[in-house]
Amino acid sequence: MSATHTPHPYYPLDLILDHYVPNTYTMRDTLIVLFSTFGAITVGSIALSYQKRTTTIRGLGNQLTFVWFVMSGFIHLFLEGYFGVYHRTLAGDQSPLAQVWKEYALSDSRYLSSDSFVLIMERITAFAWGPLAFFTAYAMYHNRPSRHIAQLVVSLGQLYGCVLYYATTLVEGSPHCDPRPYYYYFYFVFFNIFWIVIPIILMHNSVKNLYRAMKVSVEAENQSKKVKKSK
Amino acid sequence: MSATHTPHPYYPLDLILDHYVPNTYTMRDTLIVLFSTFGAITVGSIALSYQKRTTTIRGLGNQLTFVWFVMSGFIHLFLEGYFGVYHRTLAGDQSPLAQVWKEYALSDSRYLSSDSFVLIMERITAFAWGPLAFFTAYAMYHNRPSRHIAQLVVSLGQLYGCVLYYATTLVEGSPHCDPRPYYYYFYFVFFNIFWIVIPIILMHNSVKNLYRAMKVSVEAENQSKKVKKSK
Repeated sequence: MSATHTPHPYYPLDLILDHYVPNTYTMRDTLIVLFSTFGAITVGSIALSYQKRTTTIRGLGNQLTFVWFVMSGFIHLFLEGYFGVYHRTLAGDQSPLAQVWKEYALSDSRYLSSDSFVLIMERITAFAWGPLAFFTAYAMYHNRPSRHIAQLVVSLGQLYGCVLYYATTLVEGSPHCDPRPYYYYFYFVFFNIFWIVIPIILMHNSVKNLYRAMKVSVEAENQSKKVKKSK
Repeated sequence: MSATHTPHPYYPLDLILDHYVPNTYTMRDTLIVLFSTFGAITVGSIALSYQKRTTTIRGLGNQLTFVWFVMSGFIHLFLEGYFGVYHRTLAGDQSPLAQVWKEYALSDSRYLSSDSFVLIMERITAFAWGPLAFFTAYAMYHNRPSRHIAQLVVSLGQLYGCVLYYATTLVEGSPHCDPRPYYYYFYFVFFNIFWIVIPIILMHNSVKNLYRAMKVSVEAENQSKKVKKSK
């Protein structure tokens, strides 16, 4: 790297990020702010779902699913939305959300270099899956017939996005990741694996419910055909 | 570009493709082979759907949908699957499928440079959406309850993949495309726009059918709760 470029802690080491400014928050402060926000969202959504514990959001599984969609909605729309809008100047940005991204980017510098795949995938996640995740939580709350359709669509969108996200850097040998285990396994692997595991479980759950309803519908249709024929 | 690199007709002009060998087929021959294959698949799938014209595949809309999924299955699994497996050596490959890709790559060189997003997206399209497209055609043919679930999943997968495909190069100013209108509008825009327009129509169709079935199911559930309460 030429001596005229701004030094930075990101991989690959020859990445040029001349607008980079180090965070003013420490790693510990950044994580405390982030996890406190996640905690508040969890508490708020548990309180909401608790009101419906005997009607539409019954059982631990449904309650956790409700929390998941509210949390996904916030993360997609605000955290990922911030990146989707301000990606170009992120490396020199000192807002709390930007400092979270600059910390996370140690495990994936594509967030600071406006990688075209990460940018478009994150914009779709923020502005399509984000609102649709909130809608899914709303549809659960009111037991709307659209609930499992929305759940299937959001979950497939999250899963496809996350598989592409992992695989596009893994296939290159993860040049964008700091190889130290803390960044690689905690930030890159652990922070994202939720969007692989949980969507698979929720897709399975939605497909099962949709299949059951379609089976009744197809059988009723066949039955009415038989009745017509026998008349 | 250094004089020691193999000259090639692809964009960006400084792309290094030292294993490039020009096609032995002309553009005209390549397109004739490609469209003859598409024609044969269309005729075959129309013949199949014609057998079910009075039962499971009724009306022009359903017949065209059936042809679409059979065609998608073949294109995904064989054409895109070929790229997914042989991408590394494609620029020097003279098999008929490789010559199709080398012709198409004039509108998008990411197919010859093993761009990591295009590679992973195409592998998922080939080996997940390909078989699932065939399954959707099968489910239509036999009027299985899974038909609209499979149709929704494949269509969303195709739509998301295609939106990412267009947007990831557009956001960079399409550096991978030959800017001449024939390549840009016919190959890059026209050849791919089907996977935007048709999935949107088919997702709308599936959501409508799934919603109707779920509505009946939710109402029946509410009814049975009322009956229980009144007892």
